[in-house]
Amino acid sequence: MTVNLAVFEDYTQIEGVRLGITQAGVRYPDRDDLVVLELAEGSKVAGVFTRNAFCAAPVLVAREHLQSADIRYLVINTGNANAGTGQQGMQDALETCRLIAEKTGVAENQVLPFSTGVIGEPLNMGALRAGIPVALDDLGENNWGRAAAGIMTTDTTPKGASEVVEISGHRVVVTGMSKGAGMIKPDMATMLGFIATDASVSDELLSDWCGQLANASFNRITIDGDTSTNDACMLMATGRSGLMIDDGASPEAQQLFDVLKRVFQQLAQAIVRDGEGATKFVTVDVEACTSGQEALDVAYTVAHSPLVKTAMYASDANWGRILAAVGRAGLLDLDLMRVNIWLDDVQIVSSGERCPSYTEEAGSTVFAQDEFKIRIDLGRGSVSETLWTSDLSHEYVTINAEYRS
Amino acid sequence: MTVNLAVFEDYTQIEGVRLGITQAGVRYPDRDDLVVLELAEGSKVAGVFTRNAFCAAPVLVAREHLQSADIRYLVINTGNANAGTGQQGMQDALETCRLIAEKTGVAENQVLPFSTGVIGEPLNMGALRAGIPVALDDLGENNWGRAAAGIMTTDTTPKGASEVVEISGHRVVVTGMSKGAGMIKPDMATMLGFIATDASVSDELLSDWCGQLANASFNRITIDGDTSTNDACMLMATGRSGLMIDDGASPEAQQLFDVLKRVFQQLAQAIVRDGEGATKFVTVDVEACTSGQEALDVAYTVAHSPLVKTAMYASDANWGRILAAVGRAGLLDLDLMRVNIWLDDVQIVSSGERCPSYTEEAGSTVFAQDEFKIRIDLGRGSVSETLWTSDLSHEYVTINAEYRS
Repeated sequence: MTVNLAVFEDYTQIEGVRLGITQAGVRYPDRDDLVVLELAEGSKVAGVFTRNAFCAAPVLVAREHLQSADIRYLVINTGNANAGTGQQGMQDALETCRLIAEKTGVAENQVLPFSTGVIGEPLNMGALRAGIPVALDDLGENNWGRAAAGIMTTDTTPKGASEVVEISGHRVVVTGMSKGAGMIKPDMATMLGFIATDASVSDELLSDWCGQLANASFNRITIDGDTSTNDACMLMATGRSGLMIDDGASPEAQQLFDVLKRVFQQLAQAIVRDGEGATKFVTVDVEACTSGQEALDVAYTVAHSPLVKTAMYASDANWGRILAAVGRAGLLDLDLMRVNIWLDDVQIVSSGERCPSYTEEAGSTVFAQDEFKIRIDLGRGSVSETLWTSDLSHEYVTINAEYRS
Repeated sequence: MTVNLAVFEDYTQIEGVRLGITQAGVRYPDRDDLVVLELAEGSKVAGVFTRNAFCAAPVLVAREHLQSADIRYLVINTGNANAGTGQQGMQDALETCRLIAEKTGVAENQVLPFSTGVIGEPLNMGALRAGIPVALDDLGENNWGRAAAGIMTTDTTPKGASEVVEISGHRVVVTGMSKGAGMIKPDMATMLGFIATDASVSDELLSDWCGQLANASFNRITIDGDTSTNDACMLMATGRSGLMIDDGASPEAQQLFDVLKRVFQQLAQAIVRDGEGATKFVTVDVEACTSGQEALDVAYTVAHSPLVKTAMYASDANWGRILAAVGRAGLLDLDLMRVNIWLDDVQIVSSGERCPSYTEEAGSTVFAQDEFKIRIDLGRGSVSETLWTSDLSHEYVTINAEYRS
């Protein structure tokens, strides 16, 4: 069950990026579960990682390697998150890097490891030892679609995005893939995003952009409010297109940033569209706030409210639940008389009360759609934030209440 | 469906408290929906109210009246929350008080109004005008059980508690009732608690105690994390037992406080036991923290996690979800090596990793019980907090996804 999410097939390859995929048998048989992504020499990589204090061993290793060396390989296994695994987990993440390094002649710290899947069980290193050489033999530029499928856990649909743009006479490509369906599944974990461009972007700018772009995309989606131990989003620039970006304020930089932002957002929204049990894709806009944090506090309170989410599922425009969620978001000096709320173009709350023109019928028509927007205007400032979420359905409970075996 | 919650029938009456109940027809026919509680002259009342910014008209009126006069009557209707109703709602709440005042000869501000039910619809004042005289005619000391049923919304079971104790040679009674099943129902709202004693307690101490007791009970339960627009908890002292308490540090005060705490907690826990769709009653203990706020942040993050709640429902001791919830509770300097987690007496996490002695079988045996405790030791201080919660079941989604009509 997805909300308007087709399998993405229109990948444009990126010069300087090759992908190899195999069935290593980390946990489940008969599915691709190991992906190696190779970057040409001179490529630059930036990343943002989970803020969960219990972050997984591969996250600790990837953070460390990213600071200390030029990255040439990313290796991603699904089926096991290598999280909550202590010292053994660290050794396994490092050995994974070493296996790639030994086969390719790069240094161990030029490899970034990523794991997604069950928490608290030791990683099947036998599967990785056997699978890594096979994945390396499979490296090719046209493998994005198979790679997107190979990093899935309980995703029902591989997630990709790709744009080609001309900037200052250079043809520039941005291509990416992501995975995730719940922040943590019964035995599966993690949102991952891998986005590459063939533009050249300076180290500092790439790192700055990666944070900004993740904040405008992967950090603005929520399915169940749970943050995985393994979340990671990587932005890679191979520089092979000839376009050089080192001034973030230049028109070329702005043009590339906008393309990247669209790709990031498409990949992030795809995760919500494939959200566990999702039947609705809902945009929550909070406007006219005094700060971004305030806008996000309100937006997340609405998006995480089980009562708002079950009302979405029921196509029941139960506006009292939205109002109550806004009221408990922690803004103590909120002036209710300035609060207005809309469902798409239907105003439900006017000056803190039920809007005189509102009818249940108009509200229910919006809520019956599989995509709509809840827009909340607090009337106290000029800052807005947007996030995307899904509903809370019987299927969500079924998926998450299933036994892990 | 409740978790070990029988109808409470063992009420001991409180001298100085009379209750009257009627079928006013506020929203639904054929059920008691209007309760008047009368306090003898000289009684003292303290209260705590919802922190939701969109608090309902009766909450605003009750707060105001509580500060300005000696309270003689509480009037509670179910079926309509009189919330999100603007100026009309304020007039209706004030008229409700006036109706009682006119019939009884007290001043309008000696009456406290409470409403619970659908949000955003005008209160049926015709029903209240007709019902209030009938409820007043019904006043009697032995009506606690009928009153507890008369304030229910979608509760399946009336909730009460009562204790008789001897303090300094005085027989002292504490009796109370509460209602609530979800923080907000599709069309029903609110947790309410009314607790009375025949001891005499000084104004200042009663107010201080009411806050402390609510924090140790009603503010330590969570079903779905949603805070109603109408929540209220009132502590009343008629003084008729002869026991006078004005020094909070005296042994008598401590004795009475302990009885009140047990009654508050029993009434609060009854709400969780009757939680929407609840199949489990779970205690979350967070220990060895540097502050109460820190302990509560972790406890609420665990108790609100849909993944932890669905695991409870499935009787699946999926400890990775508990660990991940602890990790995302916002304690940035958390030392994982000091974290230990137990399910009842079964240790699942030891020094931040899976406990070597842990077996799935032992964990699942605990999770299969209808009541158990998750105990989290952060190993960084001496402060603990406890809260009580329920699971997230199919029935919860069904209840909250049902149409309001």
